[in-house]
Amino acid sequence: MVFSLIPKELKFFEMFSRAAKNAVETARTYQDLVKNFRNDHPFIQKIRDLEHEGDVITHELMDSLNRTFITPFDREDIHGLTTDIDNIVDAIQAVSDRMQMYHINTQDPPLGKLADILERAVVEVEKAVREMADFKNARRVLDFCIEINRLENEGDSALSEAIQNLFRGAKDPLEVIKWKEVYEITEAAIDRCEDVANTIEGIVVKNA
Amino acid sequence: MVFSLIPKELKFFEMFSRAAKNAVETARTYQDLVKNFRNDHPFIQKIRDLEHEGDVITHELMDSLNRTFITPFDREDIHGLTTDIDNIVDAIQAVSDRMQMYHINTQDPPLGKLADILERAVVEVEKAVREMADFKNARRVLDFCIEINRLENEGDSALSEAIQNLFRGAKDPLEVIKWKEVYEITEAAIDRCEDVANTIEGIVVKNA
Amino acid sequence: MVFSLIPKELKFFEMFSRAAKNAVETARTYQDLVKNFRNDHPFIQKIRDLEHEGDVITHELMDSLNRTFITPFDREDIHGLTTDIDNIVDAIQAVSDRMQMYHINTQDPPLGKLADILERAVVEVEKAVREMADFKNARRVLDFCIEINRLENEGDSALSEAIQNLFRGAKDPLEVIKWKEVYEITEAAIDRCEDVANTIEGIVVKNA
Repeated sequence: MVFSLIPKELKFFEMFSRAAKNAVETARTYQDLVKNFRNDHPFIQKIRDLEHEGDVITHELMDSLNRTFITPFDREDIHGLTTDIDNIVDAIQAVSDRMQMYHINTQDPPLGKLADILERAVVEVEKAVREMADFKNARRVLDFCIEINRLENEGDSALSEAIQNLFRGAKDPLEVIKWKEVYEITEAAIDRCEDVANTIEGIVVKNA
Repeated sequence: MVFSLIPKELKFFEMFSRAAKNAVETARTYQDLVKNFRNDHPFIQKIRDLEHEGDVITHELMDSLNRTFITPFDREDIHGLTTDIDNIVDAIQAVSDRMQMYHINTQDPPLGKLADILERAVVEVEKAVREMADFKNARRVLDFCIEINRLENEGDSALSEAIQNLFRGAKDPLEVIKWKEVYEITEAAIDRCEDVANTIEGIVVKNA
Repeated sequence: MVFSLIPKELKFFEMFSRAAKNAVETARTYQDLVKNFRNDHPFIQKIRDLEHEGDVITHELMDSLNRTFITPFDREDIHGLTTDIDNIVDAIQAVSDRMQMYHINTQDPPLGKLADILERAVVEVEKAVREMADFKNARRVLDFCIEINRLENEGDSALSEAIQNLFRGAKDPLEVIKWKEVYEITEAAIDRCEDVANTIEGIVVKNA
């Protein structure tokens, strides 16, 4: 897999890199928010702003695709990777908004654990995306993808533990409904990192 | 983006237009149903019939694709747009069936609001699809897509409000489970309109 | 639709066939598990092992795709079909794990019915995949796809009946939450069979 780095191609990689860095900042803001959650925490709005910034980058990417004849890899894959990274940020905003909507005014260790795994997965996404632009061999890119898959499995286990804990004892059913959803959307954000890994693997397969 | 309108191509646009008009009628029937809901309302069956009609159009589209060598745009996009419009109608039937299944025998203003937004989004979908066949420039098609995106945001806010209201006060948890799902599937139908907008934007990008 | 069966192409069909046979065994194990469910049943682990075996086959398929220049049909479709079959097995493992997680220590006739429909749908998937490699005409392949669609409708009805039954009478809301999810993931596994049918129909459309 060799991409010749003519300026136009660099532009795409630079935009993917910005999108991935924006996703890392979103995941880190969520990680901090979760550890100090209160309903009027300014990070809820900060996550919305980061999501908006992500939309702007997505739009620039789609626009460049519109105006570029030769792309560093298939147009469909540029579209796919752009959407995948956007979906991570969307999921994080969705869960942060849900927490505010549900007036969840507590910290919760199992959610903290899920948010930590998410942050680590998004960091690997950013590495994989960066390596795609500046690589000597596909192996390193794929290694980041393998690590993302491993973190997704870790997320599955953490979710399972969180939910078993949630159902244990006599709980208020409405609280169960709220927390189950907050856990599940956080885990879904980790799954969206796995989508990025799968898309990147597909790009590597086609361009090998 | 210029499509030369040879007869075979017109046939595809005519079928897309029928599919979109069928979606509009489904959304309007749901809008009326929601405002006068009772468990034996004939519109529940009418929506099932419209969903079946949508399946027939989908099948005709797939069959034409099977027998046509030159298509007005990529085969994959014809497949995608067909599926996207079908998904709107499927979601509306799913929520209407759920309401009957749950024996929901009341009107509910927040659901009425969501159904209104859905109807407006599907009307924009129909305009975007119609404009694709008979267009002078891509700008107008994209303007409908932007409006669909705006309505999807409006749907998000309406869902958030509906769910906050649902959890407020001491509610029967089983009623919360039912209504949460009814709201969420209605909002998912609006999301399916955004999928159409994204597919159309992709087609415009490729054919610009 | 004519595939010339050179050795490399046979290899793909042979791997698809192995993936589909693995899905059949997973669905049958789940069918048996559901009929004798207890929280420490060895079939819960057996399903995890089958899911792992499915991952190994998926990985072999992706690797072969990586190293093969001429494929029996579009690379994207080989990727898609591989993912679709994997998704069936993933859904079955997800529901089996959920049942253990929720400490569901009973048999349940409506779930038994859903598991039966799932098993029949996966058997049709295996037939459709097998027929793709060794076929005289596309008709037979499409007939299996039609039967999968019919079973998906049967699954919808069985889910609707199961959920109506679940909400009837004064139930513990936490039990309703658990069972609703178990029913729904089982039905989602049947939907994943329909995804395979749709992908295969698409392949037939393109290669007719």
